[in-house]
Amino acid sequence: MATTTSSPHSLFLQNRNSHPLNKNNLASFTNLKKINFFNTKRAISVTCSAASAPTQDRTAAQIQSGQEDRVFNFAAGPANLPEKVLLKAQSELYNWRGSGMSVMEMSHRGKEFKSIIEKAESDLRALLNIPQEYSVLFLQGGATTQFAAVPLNLCTPNDPVDYIVTGSWGDKAFKEAQKFCNPQVIWSGKAEKYTKIPNFDALEQNPDAKYLHICANETIHGVEFKEYPSAKNSTGILVADMSSNFCSKPVDVTRFGVIYAGAQKNVGPSGVTIVIVRKDLLGNAQDKTPLMLDYKIHDENNSLYNTPPCYCIYMCGLVFEYLLELGGLNEVEKMNRKKAELLYNVIDGSNGFYKCPVEKSVRSFMNVPFTLEKSDLEAEFVKEAAKEKMVQLKGHRSVGGMRASIYNAMPLAGVEKLVAFMKDFQAKHA
Amino acid sequence: MATTTSSPHSLFLQNRNSHPLNKNNLASFTNLKKINFFNTKRAISVTCSAASAPTQDRTAAQIQSGQEDRVFNFAAGPANLPEKVLLKAQSELYNWRGSGMSVMEMSHRGKEFKSIIEKAESDLRALLNIPQEYSVLFLQGGATTQFAAVPLNLCTPNDPVDYIVTGSWGDKAFKEAQKFCNPQVIWSGKAEKYTKIPNFDALEQNPDAKYLHICANETIHGVEFKEYPSAKNSTGILVADMSSNFCSKPVDVTRFGVIYAGAQKNVGPSGVTIVIVRKDLLGNAQDKTPLMLDYKIHDENNSLYNTPPCYCIYMCGLVFEYLLELGGLNEVEKMNRKKAELLYNVIDGSNGFYKCPVEKSVRSFMNVPFTLEKSDLEAEFVKEAAKEKMVQLKGHRSVGGMRASIYNAMPLAGVEKLVAFMKDFQAKHA
Repeated sequence: MATTTSSPHSLFLQNRNSHPLNKNNLASFTNLKKINFFNTKRAISVTCSAASAPTQDRTAAQIQSGQEDRVFNFAAGPANLPEKVLLKAQSELYNWRGSGMSVMEMSHRGKEFKSIIEKAESDLRALLNIPQEYSVLFLQGGATTQFAAVPLNLCTPNDPVDYIVTGSWGDKAFKEAQKFCNPQVIWSGKAEKYTKIPNFDALEQNPDAKYLHICANETIHGVEFKEYPSAKNSTGILVADMSSNFCSKPVDVTRFGVIYAGAQKNVGPSGVTIVIVRKDLLGNAQDKTPLMLDYKIHDENNSLYNTPPCYCIYMCGLVFEYLLELGGLNEVEKMNRKKAELLYNVIDGSNGFYKCPVEKSVRSFMNVPFTLEKSDLEAEFVKEAAKEKMVQLKGHRSVGGMRASIYNAMPLAGVEKLVAFMKDFQAKHA
Repeated sequence: MATTTSSPHSLFLQNRNSHPLNKNNLASFTNLKKINFFNTKRAISVTCSAASAPTQDRTAAQIQSGQEDRVFNFAAGPANLPEKVLLKAQSELYNWRGSGMSVMEMSHRGKEFKSIIEKAESDLRALLNIPQEYSVLFLQGGATTQFAAVPLNLCTPNDPVDYIVTGSWGDKAFKEAQKFCNPQVIWSGKAEKYTKIPNFDALEQNPDAKYLHICANETIHGVEFKEYPSAKNSTGILVADMSSNFCSKPVDVTRFGVIYAGAQKNVGPSGVTIVIVRKDLLGNAQDKTPLMLDYKIHDENNSLYNTPPCYCIYMCGLVFEYLLELGGLNEVEKMNRKKAELLYNVIDGSNGFYKCPVEKSVRSFMNVPFTLEKSDLEAEFVKEAAKEKMVQLKGHRSVGGMRASIYNAMPLAGVEKLVAFMKDFQAKHA
């Protein structure tokens, strides 16, 4: 039986029914003092009192230790997922709702997975109020694949298109588009180190452009569009990369021709990319478009032209369901605003000890970059925070400093803990 | 507390610590008679006797019921995963080995995920004995994306290339290549309904071709290359789509320029595609190649140019580890051969009640298509099998009949059960 310490390797050689988390063995936990799971790095220990101990006390103590096991993860993505979603996924990983199999084992053409992808789409439509005139696609390859797919689907090789570049991701999108059409950067924040969003009225859009492209939230630089420009061109099509603020607040989808987003910031694990595209834009892909980059193929096949990333879609579905239960994106935005304000207020109230370079009106609610006036303390800041279980606070290698990514699933408690830490750190080092 | 029946929706409104599978609450199972998890479709019930019942008896009964919960899944992919892999994944889903986070939440640039992807690659190299002159890439988009990536990386738009078409997938690969080069079908099994592999000596290969392409196992038609042809052209490059027999047997990688495979048959969940490419072939992608289809970009960045499908890679890593522990691909091949022979023997010994159309010498060990002489009984066959928890036996919509996919993770017991069912079914209906 699994009452002894197991390495990941030796586990496979045991009978499956002796696995500690196998539900068939749950009862046997009562007689154990302590179980170590897979102590590859740091053991996860489960302490179970004898069955005669008071249930209430035991549970309270265990809840406490369970919470302490988790870190606050400020990574820019992949990032936190809601704990309830993770626990639900864990409970049904081995046998999804009596189907006799894991979601990872299901035929993508079977009725079980069909119910999963249809509910995911339907819940996403409810969250973002997506009209039926838009197709919702669950694809692969991340936003980087969309950097090519957008021009391949929306224009010919000679067509002009406009890009607003407010950070590294918008710049990458522009550069990739150069292979497939004739893009122009009509505004760039590069000279000001990507800390601003342009005044929309002053933009010089090309009237012949086939679309106007923006990156709605720049993950690395922490710059976020709070309003959206109108595409003043021959098609009126606005395209947005929303990878890092997708489903973090309500969005009027009808303002856009195409919205695309990697899931791994706010709505799921990495490996699935969501594309929301107005249906009248389908069917015009360039001749040399790889099948898998042609929106029409995926629309016609309800994202099942080939095998989709089933488990990633399932996880997104659990997150969508969870966001709806929280009250939808209005509520989600309120929580995100509160977390962001807490953090920016500490930075701005630090008398210059902490600095955020981004213009106040366009600061991201998702990614908060900041530096220390005494830059030689930054490494210590990151290290000390990690000791207190706040991880991944180092800024992107291209900009340095720190960055706290506080997506939907970052609990308020995580930001409160960070803010308290920042004040302590300042008091110690000011 | 989670002692009452919960719908998937209401679960999210409970405190996370009251989740039935939360390790902190395991002890409380002892006082429960029965718990229903998420009874959306069919309840998964866990029966726990009172704490005073004999532990040994209870566990044995539960083991039995746990095994009965699972079905034998004969789907063509996504398909079975090893039960031990699923249970391990389940146990560490919420908190990976003391890291304080799920694998789904990890930064792809953090040390934890780096250790996961490096071990996955290293174990795959050990399994297939992949030389250092080959790059191993973990990509997205399935084999269908590779149908475009192969010509985009290996030739110019005017280059001739050769395709052997032994089934639907080879045909799809050929058709997609037409966008990016000048492919010729040098042999097609279509006229004989894709039941054969050609005689290699009789092939008329184009000496100017830049590569020769095969599909090593045709999932739909059940035709498998048992030997591989040599590319008798200017480059000597053989390319193989091994999606549906990858890691099912040893392969001499040095025979190939490129091997590619979707993971979802033998080595993981859908959402990750493995490409093994000889390094001297990198760096020649066509100008208009989308970044994400350029092998060189991924090789230079160790599959981390953008965010990879982290959880899918982690799952593949668990499977690779498991296959190594089974004894490697020689052992895996033995098991697969045994299962396949069992099934083909029953078909061939049925006096024509069951028929497999594929030429005996090239029958797939992975996908076993068969028909009934009395074809009007096929629907009943599928239905009755499902009642006995053998699911997804219906043949592909393009060929009809039945298909039993018996990948690595299909236990021998599953094939034995199917074979017994087939004999019974024949006895009843012959």
